[in-house]
Amino acid sequence: MKVIVQKFGGTSVATSQMRERVLYHIQTALSEDYQVVVVVSAMGRRGEPYATDTLLELTRGEQLENLSSREQDLLLSCGEIISASVLSSLLTHHGIENCVLTGGQAGIITNNQYNNAQIVSLNPKRLQDELNNGKVAIVAGFQGQTADGEITTLGRGGSDTTATALGVALQAEYVDIFTDVDGVLTADPRIVEEAASLEMVTYTEMCNLAFQGAKVVHPRAVEIAMQTNVPIRVRSTLSDGIGTLVVSRPERLGLAEISDRLITGITQMPNVTQIRIPTNSDHLDLHLDVFRKMASQGISVDFISVTPSSIAYTVSDPLGDLAKSLLVEMGLEPELYPGCAKVSVVGAGIAGVPGVMAKILEALTEEDVKVLQSADSHTTIWVLVSGENMVKAVRALHRKFELHKY
Amino acid sequence: MKVIVQKFGGTSVATSQMRERVLYHIQTALSEDYQVVVVVSAMGRRGEPYATDTLLELTRGEQLENLSSREQDLLLSCGEIISASVLSSLLTHHGIENCVLTGGQAGIITNNQYNNAQIVSLNPKRLQDELNNGKVAIVAGFQGQTADGEITTLGRGGSDTTATALGVALQAEYVDIFTDVDGVLTADPRIVEEAASLEMVTYTEMCNLAFQGAKVVHPRAVEIAMQTNVPIRVRSTLSDGIGTLVVSRPERLGLAEISDRLITGITQMPNVTQIRIPTNSDHLDLHLDVFRKMASQGISVDFISVTPSSIAYTVSDPLGDLAKSLLVEMGLEPELYPGCAKVSVVGAGIAGVPGVMAKILEALTEEDVKVLQSADSHTTIWVLVSGENMVKAVRALHRKFELHKY
Repeated sequence: MKVIVQKFGGTSVATSQMRERVLYHIQTALSEDYQVVVVVSAMGRRGEPYATDTLLELTRGEQLENLSSREQDLLLSCGEIISASVLSSLLTHHGIENCVLTGGQAGIITNNQYNNAQIVSLNPKRLQDELNNGKVAIVAGFQGQTADGEITTLGRGGSDTTATALGVALQAEYVDIFTDVDGVLTADPRIVEEAASLEMVTYTEMCNLAFQGAKVVHPRAVEIAMQTNVPIRVRSTLSDGIGTLVVSRPERLGLAEISDRLITGITQMPNVTQIRIPTNSDHLDLHLDVFRKMASQGISVDFISVTPSSIAYTVSDPLGDLAKSLLVEMGLEPELYPGCAKVSVVGAGIAGVPGVMAKILEALTEEDVKVLQSADSHTTIWVLVSGENMVKAVRALHRKFELHKY
Repeated sequence: MKVIVQKFGGTSVATSQMRERVLYHIQTALSEDYQVVVVVSAMGRRGEPYATDTLLELTRGEQLENLSSREQDLLLSCGEIISASVLSSLLTHHGIENCVLTGGQAGIITNNQYNNAQIVSLNPKRLQDELNNGKVAIVAGFQGQTADGEITTLGRGGSDTTATALGVALQAEYVDIFTDVDGVLTADPRIVEEAASLEMVTYTEMCNLAFQGAKVVHPRAVEIAMQTNVPIRVRSTLSDGIGTLVVSRPERLGLAEISDRLITGITQMPNVTQIRIPTNSDHLDLHLDVFRKMASQGISVDFISVTPSSIAYTVSDPLGDLAKSLLVEMGLEPELYPGCAKVSVVGAGIAGVPGVMAKILEALTEEDVKVLQSADSHTTIWVLVSGENMVKAVRALHRKFELHKY
């Protein structure tokens, strides 16, 4: 029988209205003769509003920073078990046979790198048995177990990683990642009203969008799906649409070629401080010292541009003052421009295509947006603009590349 | 090295004041060169005020009666992990090396009778390793794991059972059960001001007291301790006293013989309805029909007294009306006396000792307390009195047997 993996975030189980939608999607999949594996996150995990906070509440004010990483994982794993229990109760109430499996019980074996464990093997036998017995398997996401029986959490990618890993192991027809948006969008809909949902993106496009701060499936989860080309669908819990299909190559599914698409989407990241340091040619090693100093204080830098007469780079706004004081200590005279925004034009197809940068500059110039700095990789072009120009820049680029047509 | 098991209830981790006391008792044991195993309950388990309720809260109103017993156990087990995590954080904050172990990780293997699993084996190797590495082992109480890795809860006796089972497996010097009273008392201190804490009781006395509704260690936990004669101490979290020692035979510890003690304590159980049914000799099998009928409706009966002219027994007050309607359906004419109280005089030494019943009746008559019914076993004598006479009866018996002298 064909298998589908459905991943729901913690918000999906937090209200009865949302739970009705989860129930609907599970019932729909069952009616389409799928064997259904449901992966669920903790209420409150990764910025969701409930359970992590509530788990902390349960600890009655005890300082959990004193918890070692092993014990943290053991505690955190309860969050997903609680969510899974809520779903189990709901399904049983509606006459749907089901069982709850911890990550370990679902066969996810990890190394013992607590807080950010790597999956080392996945034995889906138990899971397959439950499915073959006609049950919906509800798997607590975000967690695994070492070969010794220690509980671990997966860190980056969280429950999305659980979902795609199970999808690969079970050779699922789809891994459906349910979110609060209709799929992968060409831009942030709060900024660009006509932002379109992409019918299809490649794994590579998806990863690039994710790295640019768009709220989509974590690259780690995507990379796992890529291993056996399990298609991911990014869907909305609230709608019936099938959202955005994420595949390796569109031909595989008999769909039209999409390699003629230049740009996948526009993303933005506000609250960035540009730092400019005037230098002179006597200090050729200065830039090395500067970045060593930043690294020693855990300051992540970006958008680095080194010339014989200056060093420029960006840090997040809250770290601006610390960076400045470090530079002053070194005898330098940094200039800071806080409140800037990084705007990214993402497209797996832009590598080697002439005229993309020209088109970007044209769009921004037409709107009087000054480019403070720019950079590019083979899949992305970034421009740094002032914060007040961010919205104007994103809209101008979205319009110029006609992304609303997708 | 010598091992001590310390069991704390969920209330002990629910406030910072109580946590300070837990810390104190652990530090004291460490300073006395014990290897320390801490067993902790969930906040809210067994009438304690917090976590079970809060776990239910976390489920956001979903009806958990729809959860199957396997899934219930998985969810409930999180309650103890949360408590254990709180303690772990506290100990680490105070520089005490520790680790949290689930029931399964502590080696407690059970059958798969969810909600009320039996321990089938206990392999303390991992636990012993952690202790030998200088760590305090914090074990989540009330739970175990099947050989297949399913999470189970122990039901009756809860974390006390975990504590004594670990005590047996580790050949602990003591299993300390911390409570909110100074030990096992000769009577309920809310009724008898001069109720004394018993310095020592035998396992048998302890079990008898427990069965009579006194709030002490569950008989199941006591029975496990008896297997290898591990001494239990029932102590107060709030005081430094060592409480009541529970042992098989006092001589083992070189202490004075206590078999000359006739009575261990007086307990009471209010809110009992006495039912009297006048009968005649034509219906010799009637009493069988009556008790079959009660059983068929799940009504627990007690204090049964059958004579040729009457049947008398007791049920709990809330079940009185149901019992009456069943009897009326059978064509009987029951008389109900609600609001009675069962007063028990408990003493492992009363078997075959003449004059105990006489002394009881003497004490009650002196206080004008009418005995509605009486019964006895080889360790306990029960009398049924009206509810308003309960306090007077308990005090009179406590005084008559001079229990304040213990």
